[in-house]
Amino acid sequence: MWQTRLRYDRNIELDWKDNLRVVLVSTRNPLNIGASARAMANFGFTRLRAVAPYDVAFREARSAVGAAPLLARAEDYPTVAEALADCHLVVGTTSVGHRELQHPMRRLEYGARQIRRALASAPVALLFGSEKFGLSNEDLSHCHWLMRIPTVGQDLSMNLGQAVALCLYELARDPKAQSARPSKIHSASAGEAEQITLQLLQVLRESGYINPRIAASTEDKVRRLVRRLEIPGRDVPVLLGMFRQILWKLGDGE
Amino acid sequence: MWQTRLRYDRNIELDWKDNLRVVLVSTRNPLNIGASARAMANFGFTRLRAVAPYDVAFREARSAVGAAPLLARAEDYPTVAEALADCHLVVGTTSVGHRELQHPMRRLEYGARQIRRALASAPVALLFGSEKFGLSNEDLSHCHWLMRIPTVGQDLSMNLGQAVALCLYELARDPKAQSARPSKIHSASAGEAEQITLQLLQVLRESGYINPRIAASTEDKVRRLVRRLEIPGRDVPVLLGMFRQILWKLGDGE
Repeated sequence: MWQTRLRYDRNIELDWKDNLRVVLVSTRNPLNIGASARAMANFGFTRLRAVAPYDVAFREARSAVGAAPLLARAEDYPTVAEALADCHLVVGTTSVGHRELQHPMRRLEYGARQIRRALASAPVALLFGSEKFGLSNEDLSHCHWLMRIPTVGQDLSMNLGQAVALCLYELARDPKAQSARPSKIHSASAGEAEQITLQLLQVLRESGYINPRIAASTEDKVRRLVRRLEIPGRDVPVLLGMFRQILWKLGDGE
Repeated sequence: MWQTRLRYDRNIELDWKDNLRVVLVSTRNPLNIGASARAMANFGFTRLRAVAPYDVAFREARSAVGAAPLLARAEDYPTVAEALADCHLVVGTTSVGHRELQHPMRRLEYGARQIRRALASAPVALLFGSEKFGLSNEDLSHCHWLMRIPTVGQDLSMNLGQAVALCLYELARDPKAQSARPSKIHSASAGEAEQITLQLLQVLRESGYINPRIAASTEDKVRRLVRRLEIPGRDVPVLLGMFRQILWKLGDGE
Protein backbone atom coordinates (compact mmCIF):
# COMPACT_ATOMS: atom_id res chain seq x y z
CA MET A 1 0.00 0.00 0.00
CA TRP A 2 1.24 3.47 -0.83
CA GLN A 3 -1.36 5.17 1.23
CA THR A 4 -0.26 6.56 4.55
CA ARG A 5 -2.64 7.90 7.08
CA LEU A 6 -1.13 9.77 9.97
CA ARG A 7 -3.08 9.23 13.16
CA TYR A 8 -3.05 11.34 16.27
CA ASP A 9 -4.42 10.71 19.68
CA ARG A 10 -7.75 12.48 19.75
CA ASN A 11 -8.92 11.83 23.28
CA ILE A 12 -6.22 13.93 24.84
CA GLU A 13 -7.22 16.81 22.61
CA LEU A 14 -10.92 16.81 23.44
CA ASP A 15 -10.56 18.54 26.80
CA TRP A 16 -8.76 21.65 25.69
CA LYS A 17 -10.94 21.96 22.60
CA ASP A 18 -14.07 22.02 24.78
CA ASN A 19 -12.64 25.08 26.52
CA LEU A 20 -12.91 27.19 23.37
CA ARG A 21 -15.99 29.36 22.82
CA VAL A 22 -16.38 30.51 19.24
CA VAL A 23 -18.35 33.74 19.56
CA LEU A 24 -20.05 35.17 16.46
CA VAL A 25 -21.09 38.77 16.97
CA SER A 26 -24.02 40.22 14.98
CA THR A 27 -23.73 37.72 12.16
CA ARG A 28 -26.14 38.43 9.32
CA ASN A 29 -25.87 35.56 6.88
CA PRO A 30 -27.15 32.14 7.99
CA LEU A 31 -24.72 30.50 5.56
CA ASN A 32 -21.85 31.95 7.57
CA ILE A 33 -23.20 30.66 10.88
CA GLY A 34 -23.62 27.28 9.22
CA ALA A 35 -20.13 27.35 7.70
CA SER A 36 -18.63 28.32 11.07
CA ALA A 37 -20.43 25.45 12.80
CA ARG A 38 -19.27 23.04 10.11
CA ALA A 39 -15.64 24.16 10.49
CA MET A 40 -15.96 23.63 14.25
CA ALA A 41 -17.22 20.10 13.68
CA ASN A 42 -14.40 19.52 11.17
CA PHE A 43 -11.75 20.40 13.73
CA GLY A 44 -13.39 19.01 16.86
CA PHE A 45 -14.55 22.19 18.58
CA THR A 46 -17.98 22.15 20.24
CA ARG A 47 -19.06 25.42 21.86
CA LEU A 48 -20.66 27.98 19.57
CA ARG A 49 -22.11 31.23 20.89
CA ALA A 50 -23.96 33.89 18.96
CA VAL A 51 -24.37 37.46 20.13
CA ALA A 52 -27.40 39.27 18.77
CA PRO A 53 -27.49 37.41 15.45
CA TYR A 54 -30.21 38.37 13.07
CA ASP A 55 -33.04 36.13 14.23
CA VAL A 56 -33.63 34.67 10.82
CA ALA A 57 -29.90 33.98 10.36
CA PHE A 58 -29.71 31.91 13.50
CA ARG A 59 -32.83 29.90 12.78
CA GLU A 60 -31.93 29.20 9.17
CA ALA A 61 -28.42 28.13 10.10
CA ARG A 62 -29.81 25.30 12.19
CA SER A 63 -30.22 23.30 9.00
CA ALA A 64 -26.53 23.60 8.00
CA VAL A 65 -24.87 20.54 6.50
CA GLY A 66 -23.29 18.17 8.99
CA ALA A 67 -23.28 20.49 11.97
CA ALA A 68 -26.85 20.10 13.23
CA PRO A 69 -26.01 18.77 16.74
CA LEU A 70 -23.49 21.55 17.29
CA LEU A 71 -25.95 24.21 16.14
CA ALA A 72 -28.70 22.76 18.32
CA ARG A 73 -26.41 23.25 21.34
CA ALA A 74 -25.34 26.75 20.27
CA GLU A 75 -26.06 29.47 22.82
CA ASP A 76 -27.58 32.84 22.08
CA TYR A 77 -26.64 35.96 24.09
CA PRO A 78 -27.98 39.51 23.94
CA THR A 79 -24.60 41.17 24.67
CA VAL A 80 -20.91 40.47 24.15
CA ALA A 81 -20.22 40.85 27.89
CA GLU A 82 -22.64 38.07 28.74
CA ALA A 83 -21.24 35.76 26.05
CA LEU A 84 -17.74 36.16 27.53
CA ALA A 85 -18.52 36.07 31.24
CA ASP A 86 -16.90 32.66 31.96
CA CYS A 87 -13.82 33.22 29.77
CA HIS A 88 -10.36 33.97 31.17
CA LEU A 89 -8.91 35.07 27.86
CA VAL A 90 -10.79 36.98 25.17
CA VAL A 91 -9.27 37.31 21.70
CA GLY A 92 -10.77 39.30 18.84
CA THR A 93 -10.04 38.41 15.22
CA THR A 94 -9.38 40.59 12.22
CA SER A 95 -8.02 40.06 8.76
CA VAL A 96 -7.66 43.73 7.95
CA GLY A 97 -4.41 45.29 9.03
CA HIS A 98 -4.82 49.01 8.41
CA ARG A 99 -7.23 49.91 11.17
CA GLU A 100 -5.65 51.89 13.93
CA LEU A 101 -6.41 49.71 16.87
CA GLN A 102 -5.36 50.40 20.43
CA HIS A 103 -4.76 46.72 21.06
CA PRO A 104 -1.83 44.36 20.97
CA MET A 105 -2.02 42.54 17.63
CA ARG A 106 -0.70 39.03 17.10
CA ARG A 107 -0.37 37.12 13.89
CA LEU A 108 -2.44 33.91 13.67
CA GLU A 109 0.53 31.52 13.75
CA TYR A 110 1.79 33.05 16.98
CA GLY A 111 -1.52 33.93 18.61
CA ALA A 112 -2.94 30.43 18.15
CA ARG A 113 -0.09 28.99 20.20
CA GLN A 114 -0.88 31.33 23.07
CA ILE A 115 -4.58 30.52 22.88
CA ARG A 116 -3.83 26.83 22.89
CA ARG A 117 -1.72 27.20 26.02
CA ALA A 118 -4.52 29.16 27.72
CA LEU A 119 -7.13 26.56 26.67
CA ALA A 120 -5.28 23.92 28.67
CA SER A 121 -6.46 25.51 31.90
CA ALA A 122 -9.47 27.78 31.32
CA PRO A 123 -12.20 28.82 28.89
CA VAL A 124 -11.11 31.15 26.09
CA ALA A 125 -13.39 33.20 23.80
CA LEU A 126 -12.53 33.79 20.16
CA LEU A 127 -14.59 36.64 18.74
CA PHE A 128 -15.64 37.14 15.12
CA GLY A 129 -17.41 40.31 14.02
CA SER A 130 -20.16 40.82 11.49
CA GLU A 131 -19.54 40.25 7.78
CA LYS A 132 -19.81 43.91 6.93
CA PHE A 133 -18.27 45.78 9.83
CA GLY A 134 -16.15 43.29 11.74
CA LEU A 135 -15.89 43.85 15.48
CA SER A 136 -16.95 47.26 16.77
CA ASN A 137 -14.76 49.35 19.07
CA GLU A 138 -17.01 48.37 21.94
CA ASP A 139 -16.64 44.66 21.08
CA LEU A 140 -12.87 45.14 20.89
CA SER A 141 -12.72 46.79 24.31
CA HIS A 142 -13.61 43.40 25.81
CA CYS A 143 -10.59 41.74 24.19
CA HIS A 144 -7.21 41.12 25.81
CA TRP A 145 -5.57 41.18 22.40
CA LEU A 146 -6.33 40.78 18.69
CA MET A 147 -5.33 38.07 16.28
CA ARG A 148 -4.70 38.90 12.64
CA ILE A 149 -5.05 36.39 9.83
CA PRO A 150 -1.99 37.08 7.65
CA THR A 151 -3.70 37.99 4.40
CA VAL A 152 -1.82 39.77 1.63
CA GLY A 153 -4.18 42.60 0.74
CA GLN A 154 -4.93 45.11 3.42
CA ASP A 155 -8.19 46.11 1.81
CA LEU A 156 -9.91 42.82 1.14
CA SER A 157 -11.46 41.33 4.25
CA MET A 158 -11.93 37.59 4.59
CA ASN A 159 -15.12 35.62 4.25
CA LEU A 160 -16.38 34.94 7.80
CA GLY A 161 -16.75 31.17 7.43
CA GLN A 162 -13.24 30.94 5.99
CA ALA A 163 -11.78 33.08 8.78
CA VAL A 164 -13.34 30.80 11.40
CA ALA A 165 -12.00 27.71 9.58
CA LEU A 166 -8.47 29.15 9.41
CA CYS A 167 -8.33 30.06 13.10
CA LEU A 168 -9.62 26.63 14.17
CA TYR A 169 -7.25 24.87 11.77
CA GLU A 170 -4.29 26.77 13.18
CA LEU A 171 -5.39 25.90 16.72
CA ALA A 172 -5.75 22.22 15.85
CA ARG A 173 -2.69 22.19 13.61
CA ASP A 174 0.02 19.75 14.57
CA PRO A 175 3.48 21.30 14.02
CA LYS A 176 5.04 17.85 14.21
CA ALA A 177 3.00 16.74 11.21
CA GLN A 178 4.89 19.32 9.16
CA SER A 179 8.05 17.28 9.21
CA ALA A 180 6.45 13.84 9.68
CA ARG A 181 7.49 11.93 6.61
CA PRO A 182 4.88 9.57 5.23
CA SER A 183 6.18 6.01 5.17
CA LYS A 184 8.55 5.42 2.27
CA ILE A 185 7.16 4.16 -0.97
CA HIS A 186 8.44 0.62 -1.19
CA SER A 187 10.42 0.75 -4.40
CA ALA A 188 11.37 -2.15 -6.66
CA SER A 189 14.41 -4.18 -5.63
CA ALA A 190 17.48 -4.27 -7.88
CA GLY A 191 16.43 -7.76 -8.96
CA GLU A 192 12.96 -6.57 -9.95
CA ALA A 193 14.42 -3.59 -11.79
CA GLU A 194 16.66 -5.95 -13.73
CA GLN A 195 13.71 -8.24 -14.56
CA ILE A 196 11.91 -5.24 -16.02
CA THR A 197 15.04 -4.15 -17.87
CA LEU A 198 15.45 -7.58 -19.50
CA GLN A 199 11.81 -7.81 -20.51
CA LEU A 200 11.84 -4.29 -21.94
CA LEU A 201 15.03 -5.05 -23.89
CA GLN A 202 13.35 -8.18 -25.27
CA VAL A 203 10.38 -6.08 -26.40
CA LEU A 204 12.68 -3.51 -28.00
CA ARG A 205 14.65 -6.24 -29.76
CA GLU A 206 11.55 -7.99 -31.07
CA SER A 207 10.06 -4.72 -32.25
CA GLY A 208 13.25 -3.77 -34.15
CA TYR A 209 13.96 -0.70 -31.96
CA ILE A 210 17.51 -1.80 -31.13
CA ASN A 211 20.20 -1.27 -33.74
CA PRO A 212 22.30 -4.50 -33.49
CA ARG A 213 25.56 -2.61 -34.13
CA ILE A 214 25.19 -0.52 -30.99
CA ALA A 215 23.14 -3.02 -29.00
CA ALA A 216 25.49 -3.01 -25.99
CA SER A 217 25.34 0.74 -25.47
CA THR A 218 21.57 0.73 -25.96
CA GLU A 219 21.25 -1.90 -23.26
CA ASP A 220 23.16 0.31 -20.82
CA LYS A 221 20.95 3.26 -21.69
CA VAL A 222 17.79 1.26 -21.10
CA ARG A 223 19.13 -0.09 -17.82
CA ARG A 224 19.88 3.42 -16.57
CA LEU A 225 16.49 4.68 -17.77
CA VAL A 226 14.70 1.96 -15.81
CA ARG A 227 16.64 2.86 -12.64
CA ARG A 228 15.75 6.54 -13.05
CA LEU A 229 12.05 5.67 -13.07
CA GLU A 230 12.21 4.50 -9.42
CA ILE A 231 9.43 2.01 -10.05
CA PRO A 232 7.36 1.22 -6.94
CA GLY A 233 7.52 -2.47 -5.99
CA ARG A 234 3.78 -2.93 -6.34
CA ASP A 235 3.90 -1.87 -10.00
CA VAL A 236 6.51 -4.48 -10.99
CA PRO A 237 4.08 -7.36 -11.74
CA VAL A 238 1.83 -4.99 -13.71
CA LEU A 239 4.69 -3.84 -15.93
CA LEU A 240 6.01 -7.38 -16.42
CA GLY A 241 2.49 -8.46 -17.43
CA MET A 242 2.28 -5.65 -19.99
CA PHE A 243 5.65 -6.61 -21.51
CA ARG A 244 4.71 -10.30 -21.60
CA GLN A 245 1.54 -9.49 -23.49
CA ILE A 246 3.38 -7.23 -25.94
CA LEU A 247 6.02 -9.94 -26.50
CA TRP A 248 3.32 -12.51 -27.11
CA LYS A 249 1.65 -10.27 -29.65
CA LEU A 250 4.99 -9.39 -31.32
CA GLY A 251 5.77 -13.13 -31.65
CA ASP A 252 2.27 -13.84 -32.94
CA GLY A 253 2.64 -11.18 -35.63
CA GLU A 254 5.80 -12.75 -37.08
CA MET B 1 1.98 51.82 21.22
CA TRP B 2 0.93 48.29 22.08
CA GLN B 3 0.06 47.43 18.55
CA THR B 4 2.56 45.35 16.68
CA ARG B 5 2.28 44.55 13.04
CA LEU B 6 4.61 41.92 11.69
CA ARG B 7 5.64 42.61 8.15
CA TYR B 8 7.09 40.22 5.62
CA ASP B 9 8.67 40.82 2.28
CA ARG B 10 5.95 40.23 -0.25
CA ASN B 11 7.76 40.78 -3.51
CA ILE B 12 9.93 37.71 -3.15
CA GLU B 13 6.83 35.64 -2.66
CA LEU B 14 4.96 36.77 -5.75
CA ASP B 15 6.86 34.60 -8.20
CA TRP B 16 6.29 31.23 -6.60
CA LYS B 17 2.68 32.08 -5.89
CA ASP B 18 2.04 32.76 -9.57
CA ASN B 19 3.13 29.18 -10.29
CA LEU B 20 0.14 27.73 -8.47
CA ARG B 21 -2.97 26.79 -10.44
CA VAL B 22 -6.04 26.32 -8.26
CA VAL B 23 -8.19 23.91 -10.26
CA LEU B 24 -11.86 23.55 -9.34
CA VAL B 25 -13.41 20.46 -10.91
CA SER B 26 -17.17 20.33 -11.63
CA THR B 27 -18.06 22.94 -9.07
CA ARG B 28 -21.80 23.46 -8.74
CA ASN B 29 -22.29 26.39 -6.39
CA PRO B 30 -21.27 29.87 -7.60
CA LEU B 31 -20.78 30.92 -3.97
CA ASN B 32 -18.01 28.34 -3.68
CA ILE B 33 -16.24 29.56 -6.81
CA GLY B 34 -16.51 33.08 -5.45
CA ALA B 35 -15.26 32.05 -1.99
CA SER B 36 -12.31 30.20 -3.56
CA ALA B 37 -11.38 33.25 -5.63
CA ARG B 38 -11.64 35.46 -2.58
CA ALA B 39 -9.35 33.18 -0.56
CA MET B 40 -6.85 33.28 -3.44
CA ALA B 41 -6.92 37.07 -3.39
CA ASN B 42 -6.55 37.00 0.42
CA PHE B 43 -3.36 34.96 0.23
CA GLY B 44 -1.86 36.38 -2.97
CA PHE B 45 -2.52 33.58 -5.44
CA THR B 46 -3.65 34.53 -8.92
CA ARG B 47 -4.36 31.62 -11.28
CA LEU B 48 -7.81 30.06 -11.05
CA ARG B 49 -8.94 27.32 -13.42
CA ALA B 50 -12.34 25.71 -13.62
CA VAL B 51 -13.00 22.34 -15.24
CA ALA B 52 -16.52 21.83 -16.54
CA PRO B 53 -18.20 24.05 -13.95
CA TYR B 54 -21.93 24.38 -14.16
CA ASP B 55 -22.28 27.22 -16.60
CA VAL B 56 -24.48 29.26 -14.35
CA ALA B 57 -22.11 28.73 -11.42
CA PHE B 58 -19.18 30.20 -13.28
CA ARG B 59 -21.05 33.19 -14.60
CA GLU B 60 -22.66 34.02 -11.27
CA ALA B 61 -19.37 33.73 -9.45
CA ARG B 62 -17.95 36.55 -11.50
CA SER B 63 -19.70 38.97 -9.20
CA ALA B 64 -18.05 37.62 -6.04
CA VAL B 65 -16.97 40.12 -3.38
CA GLY B 66 -13.48 41.47 -3.79
CA ALA B 67 -12.19 38.94 -6.29
CA ALA B 68 -13.57 40.32 -9.55
CA PRO B 69 -10.21 40.82 -11.36
CA LEU B 70 -9.09 37.31 -10.44
CA LEU B 71 -12.36 35.80 -11.62
CA ALA B 72 -12.24 37.75 -14.86
CA ARG B 73 -8.86 36.15 -15.58
CA ALA B 74 -10.02 32.65 -14.56
CA GLU B 75 -9.68 30.01 -17.25
CA ASP B 76 -12.28 27.46 -18.19
CA TYR B 77 -11.32 23.96 -19.43
CA PRO B 78 -13.49 21.12 -20.70
CA THR B 79 -11.32 18.35 -19.20
CA VAL B 80 -9.00 17.84 -16.23
CA ALA B 81 -6.16 16.76 -18.53
CA GLU B 82 -6.26 20.06 -20.41
CA ALA B 83 -6.38 22.11 -17.21
CA LEU B 84 -3.21 20.37 -15.97
CA ALA B 85 -1.18 20.23 -19.16
CA ASP B 86 1.48 22.79 -18.13
CA CYS B 87 1.87 21.53 -14.55
CA HIS B 88 4.84 19.50 -13.33
CA LEU B 89 3.22 18.43 -10.10
CA VAL B 90 -0.48 17.64 -9.68
CA VAL B 91 -1.91 17.29 -6.19
CA GLY B 92 -5.49 16.29 -5.39
CA THR B 93 -7.17 17.37 -2.16
CA THR B 94 -9.48 15.51 0.17
CA SER B 95 -10.74 16.03 3.68
CA VAL B 96 -12.29 12.61 4.02
CA GLY B 97 -9.94 9.89 5.22
CA HIS B 98 -11.89 6.67 4.88
CA ARG B 99 -11.91 6.25 1.11
CA GLU B 100 -9.63 3.51 -0.07
CA LEU B 101 -7.40 5.40 -2.43
CA GLN B 102 -4.53 3.94 -4.40
CA HIS B 103 -2.50 7.10 -3.93
CA PRO B 104 0.14 8.35 -1.57
CA MET B 105 -1.62 10.54 0.98
CA ARG B 106 0.04 13.46 2.71
CA ARG B 107 -1.26 15.55 5.54
CA LEU B 108 -1.72 19.26 4.73
CA GLU B 109 1.09 20.50 7.01
CA TYR B 110 3.60 18.23 5.28
CA GLY B 111 2.22 18.29 1.73
CA ALA B 112 2.13 22.09 1.59
CA ARG B 113 5.87 22.21 2.22
CA GLN B 114 6.50 19.91 -0.70
CA ILE B 115 4.20 21.91 -2.96
CA ARG B 116 5.93 25.11 -1.96
CA ARG B 117 9.31 23.65 -2.85
CA ALA B 118 7.97 22.53 -6.24
CA LEU B 119 6.41 25.96 -6.89
CA ALA B 120 9.84 27.54 -6.74
CA SER B 121 10.71 26.02 -10.10
CA ALA B 122 7.58 24.98 -12.01
CA PRO B 123 3.78 25.23 -12.23
CA VAL B 124 1.85 23.06 -9.77
CA ALA B 125 -1.87 22.22 -9.92
CA LEU B 126 -3.94 21.87 -6.77
CA LEU B 127 -7.22 20.07 -7.53
CA PHE B 128 -10.50 20.44 -5.67
CA GLY B 129 -13.46 18.20 -6.50
CA SER B 130 -17.17 18.97 -6.58
CA GLU B 131 -19.08 19.79 -3.40
CA LYS B 132 -21.04 16.56 -3.44
CA PHE B 133 -18.69 13.91 -4.77
CA GLY B 134 -15.17 15.31 -4.39
CA LEU B 135 -12.65 14.20 -7.00
CA SER B 136 -13.60 11.19 -9.13
CA ASN B 137 -11.30 8.22 -9.59
CA GLU B 138 -10.51 9.50 -13.07
CA ASP B 139 -9.63 12.94 -11.69
CA LEU B 140 -7.43 11.26 -9.07
CA SER B 141 -5.57 9.24 -11.69
CA HIS B 142 -4.03 12.51 -12.91
CA CYS B 143 -2.57 13.26 -9.47
CA HIS B 144 0.93 12.50 -8.26
CA TRP B 145 -0.30 12.35 -4.70
CA LEU B 146 -3.15 13.47 -2.48
CA MET B 147 -3.23 15.99 0.31
CA ARG B 148 -5.56 15.49 3.26
CA ILE B 149 -6.86 18.32 5.41
CA PRO B 150 -6.54 16.97 8.96
CA THR B 151 -10.17 17.12 10.05
CA VAL B 152 -11.36 15.21 13.10
CA GLY B 153 -14.46 13.45 11.79
CA GLN B 154 -13.98 11.00 8.98
CA ASP B 155 -17.57 11.35 7.81
CA LEU B 156 -18.04 15.09 7.58
CA SER B 157 -16.48 16.59 4.47
CA MET B 158 -15.32 20.19 4.41
CA ASN B 159 -17.00 23.12 2.77
CA LEU B 160 -15.24 23.72 -0.57
CA GLY B 161 -14.47 27.40 -0.04
CA GLN B 162 -13.06 26.65 3.41
CA ALA B 163 -10.92 23.79 2.07
CA VAL B 164 -9.41 26.09 -0.57
CA ALA B 165 -8.74 28.77 2.07
CA LEU B 166 -7.00 26.28 4.38
CA CYS B 167 -4.72 24.90 1.66
CA LEU B 168 -3.72 28.38 0.50
CA TYR B 169 -3.19 29.57 4.06
CA GLU B 170 -0.90 26.62 4.80
CA LEU B 171 1.04 27.34 1.59
CA ALA B 172 1.43 31.01 2.49
CA ARG B 173 1.94 30.31 6.19
CA ASP B 174 5.19 31.55 7.65
CA PRO B 175 6.59 29.02 10.14
CA LYS B 176 8.90 31.68 11.54
CA ALA B 177 5.89 33.79 12.50
CA GLN B 178 4.91 31.05 14.91
CA SER B 179 7.70 31.91 17.28
CA ALA B 180 8.09 35.59 16.33
CA ARG B 181 7.39 37.45 19.51
CA PRO B 182 5.49 40.71 19.08
CA SER B 183 7.50 43.59 20.47
CA LYS B 184 7.31 43.80 24.25
CA ILE B 185 4.63 45.91 25.80
CA HIS B 186 6.51 48.84 27.30
CA SER B 187 5.61 48.54 30.95
CA ALA B 188 5.73 51.24 33.60
CA SER B 189 9.11 51.99 35.16
CA ALA B 190 9.68 51.37 38.85
CA GLY B 191 9.42 55.12 39.41
CA GLU B 192 6.06 55.30 37.66
CA ALA B 193 4.80 52.28 39.58
CA GLU B 194 5.78 53.99 42.82
CA GLN B 195 4.03 57.21 41.76
CA ILE B 196 0.85 55.22 41.21
CA THR B 197 1.33 53.41 44.53
CA LEU B 198 1.68 56.67 46.43
CA GLN B 199 -1.35 58.25 44.76
CA LEU B 200 -3.45 55.15 45.38
CA LEU B 201 -2.38 55.08 49.03
CA GLN B 202 -3.37 58.70 49.35
CA VAL B 203 -6.80 57.92 47.92
CA LEU B 204 -7.19 54.98 50.29
CA ARG B 205 -6.15 57.08 53.26
CA GLU B 206 -8.51 59.93 52.39
CA SER B 207 -11.36 57.54 51.81
CA GLY B 208 -10.81 55.84 55.19
CA TYR B 209 -9.92 52.47 53.69
CA ILE B 210 -6.65 52.20 55.60
CA ASN B 211 -6.78 51.18 59.24
CA PRO B 212 -4.12 53.42 60.86
CA ARG B 213 -3.06 50.66 63.26
CA ILE B 214 -1.88 48.41 60.44
CA ALA B 215 -1.09 51.16 57.95
CA ALA B 216 2.49 49.94 57.32
CA SER B 217 1.47 46.41 56.32
CA THR B 218 -1.37 47.75 54.15
CA GLU B 219 1.12 49.95 52.33
CA ASP B 220 3.25 46.94 51.52
CA LYS B 221 0.23 45.02 50.27
CA VAL B 222 -0.82 47.88 48.00
CA ARG B 223 2.73 48.25 46.69
CA ARG B 224 2.89 44.55 45.79
CA LEU B 225 -0.58 44.66 44.22
CA VAL B 226 0.45 47.55 41.95
CA ARG B 227 3.55 45.61 40.82
CA ARG B 228 1.45 42.53 40.02
CA LEU B 229 -0.75 44.56 37.69
CA GLU B 230 2.18 45.12 35.29
CA ILE B 231 0.75 48.46 34.23
CA PRO B 232 1.71 49.49 30.68
CA GLY B 233 3.69 52.71 30.57
CA ARG B 234 1.12 54.45 28.38
CA ASP B 235 -1.59 53.92 31.01
CA VAL B 236 0.37 55.61 33.82
CA PRO B 237 -0.79 59.20 33.13
CA VAL B 238 -4.40 58.01 32.75
CA LEU B 239 -4.36 56.29 36.13
CA LEU B 240 -2.63 59.23 37.84
CA GLY B 241 -5.28 61.52 36.35
CA MET B 242 -8.05 59.33 37.74
CA PHE B 243 -6.52 59.33 41.22
CA ARG B 244 -5.99 63.09 41.15
CA GLN B 245 -9.62 63.63 40.32
CA ILE B 246 -10.77 61.24 43.04
CA LEU B 247 -8.50 62.98 45.57
CA TRP B 248 -9.83 66.36 44.57
CA LYS B 249 -13.40 65.17 45.03
CA LEU B 250 -12.58 63.49 48.36
CA GLY B 251 -11.02 66.71 49.63
CA ASP B 252 -14.02 68.72 48.36
CA GLY B 253 -16.44 66.51 50.27
CA GLU B 254 -14.80 67.08 53.66
